Amino acid sequence: MHCTHGAVNGHLRDLSGLCEKRNNTDHNMELEFIEQLRQGVPTNELVRLGIGDDAAILDTRRLETVLTVDLLTEGVDFLLDEVAPQWIGRKALAVNLSDLAAMAAQPVAALVAVALPKECAKTLAPQLLEGMTPLLQKYNVALIGGDTNTWDGGLVISVMAIGRVTEHGPFKRSGAKPGDRILVTGTLGGSILRRQFLFEPRINEALYLNGHHRINAAIDVSDGLSLDLARLAAESKVGAIIDAHHVPISDDAKQLVEQQSETQGTKSPLEHALYDGEDFELLLAVPPEEAERLLATQPLMPTMGVPLTDIGVFVAEPGQWLRDHNGVSRQISPQGFVH
Amino acid sequence: MHCTHGAVNGHLRDLSGLCEKRNNTDHNMELEFIEQLRQGVPTNELVRLGIGDDAAILDTRRLETVLTVDLLTEGVDFLLDEVAPQWIGRKALAVNLSDLAAMAAQPVAALVAVALPKECAKTLAPQLLEGMTPLLQKYNVALIGGDTNTWDGGLVISVMAIGRVTEHGPFKRSGAKPGDRILVTGTLGGSILRRQFLFEPRINEALYLNGHHRINAAIDVSDGLSLDLARLAAESKVGAIIDAHHVPISDDAKQLVEQQSETQGTKSPLEHALYDGEDFELLLAVPPEEAERLLATQPLMPTMGVPLTDIGVFVAEPGQWLRDHNGVSRQISPQGFVH
Repeated sequence: MHCTHGAVNGHLRDLSGLCEKRNNTDHNMELEFIEQLRQGVPTNELVRLGIGDDAAILDTRRLETVLTVDLLTEGVDFLLDEVAPQWIGRKALAVNLSDLAAMAAQPVAALVAVALPKECAKTLAPQLLEGMTPLLQKYNVALIGGDTNTWDGGLVISVMAIGRVTEHGPFKRSGAKPGDRILVTGTLGGSILRRQFLFEPRINEALYLNGHHRINAAIDVSDGLSLDLARLAAESKVGAIIDAHHVPISDDAKQLVEQQSETQGTKSPLEHALYDGEDFELLLAVPPEEAERLLATQPLMPTMGVPLTDIGVFVAEPGQWLRDHNGVSRQISPQGFVH
Repeated sequence: MHCTHGAVNGHLRDLSGLCEKRNNTDHNMELEFIEQLRQGVPTNELVRLGIGDDAAILDTRRLETVLTVDLLTEGVDFLLDEVAPQWIGRKALAVNLSDLAAMAAQPVAALVAVALPKECAKTLAPQLLEGMTPLLQKYNVALIGGDTNTWDGGLVISVMAIGRVTEHGPFKRSGAKPGDRILVTGTLGGSILRRQFLFEPRINEALYLNGHHRINAAIDVSDGLSLDLARLAAESKVGAIIDAHHVPISDDAKQLVEQQSETQGTKSPLEHALYDGEDFELLLAVPPEEAERLLATQPLMPTMGVPLTDIGVFVAEPGQWLRDHNGVSRQISPQGFVH
């Protein structure tokens, strides 16, 4: 475990730096942190009782409640000596908001539990929170609970996000039908360069699409287009053909390939887009006529700057195929990044 | 990190034992585990969508929702080579249910996130779940979400529990008034011997008391009578006098003192009861006439076998005092076990 924090690719220079030796008791630290949580973060109109009691209370009576949890570990999801703690805090919250987006849920609240390395606990806790705050504010998410622990191990951060279904109902993974087009937001691949920490959860995009268009199924791309498409297809009991030449490849994926070619890299930009993961874009099953309308009008472009791309079609036969520009399909085995 | 599991004080002999080397991919392991979760655990009538999508959905529309999170770490909350993984899983859930009890909330669902040591992941995951299952069943708690991670570090388990407020409203920490009696369920101290893992969350007791009696405030004793009483008093803006000779001391606390006297122990049974923590009993602020009724009828004894004891009184002046059997009070500084 390292307690000096660097930046990914030098994009974040102003780091609050080295760990102090802990000279407070854990108790005081937890009290201080809870006080920060109570004062520094936005609230939400549905919060009836926030941080400070044995549990929080939400007024969930108007609409159904959506819940999700994700946990990040040092060495797997981030390296403490290569990335700013603020980015880690941001990511821990953002991956959960992305799950809410995949359900077309309106975010309401979050709870955060951390295991902090003893020697950096005092500095890390507020830095993690600092990284979350812009997202909490942007999406009106109240921090309603937390559990702060220190230990001899590495950093672990677990966030649970709570949202509510809107009057348009939830997106689900099940619901894709043979003939539905496969649409994806944004571009894919190479998230390791930076986007895995700084991606924007597609909350607003999901809420807009759910409110204005007919979407049969949805998932967010957390572990790679190929693997998450397979998950959606499996829940919907269908298969999927990906049009290889239509997959929107991110500049990051292309940059990665250029960097790799200087060393020993062998992955193509398409392979990065198919298998890298952590893009946190929305993958949608859309009836063909609705897809045509969406692609013609590109409703997410004007205010959100997010393109929608048609990358293939769902089919009745279970399985996943990659189709080239000559129309030749070969079956592929779904794979991706698994934590 | 040790992957052989022993028992606390030899009370659990049948352990599933040594870790296998992981020969499955993480992906397969997570899928297997999710399949177990989907099949093996109880559900709850409020679950609209359980494990298997990007998030779960609860029908929370009838009553307000209560949420809490707790995280346990290896080396602080348990030692993997001294305690059965089933006990760890049980405790991770039970501490959250105890928080729901402290709010007089009816349990509904839970989400579990784990960071598993790589070399034991495959055996640990089902063992942790196995330890939770009896409590899930007993209190009708649906497991609606999870995140399974493997890493090079020790075991971390984070559980979030969701409950609902009943028609009698929640217990809160605020609400204690000067003159209110301090009542506690069960006995205190020495939980390290075994009770820290095998305690019964006071769900049924809390629901009964909330439904039939006037309780002004409540908290569960997680970090010690002294410290948790101070927390309740602080939220209620009152002080508290503890009648030392009325504190119900557990047999475990007495046994600990006997064991200590053979070595170098210096704590008295009362000190164990005041400061040990992890008793997970309910601490209640009760109006005097209501307290008298409760103590006379002992309504939790017949079916739950749980005594209620009057251990003192709330006062207007902030602070904590310990009063001896001669009526002499000395101010004490709240302390306890802090994770």
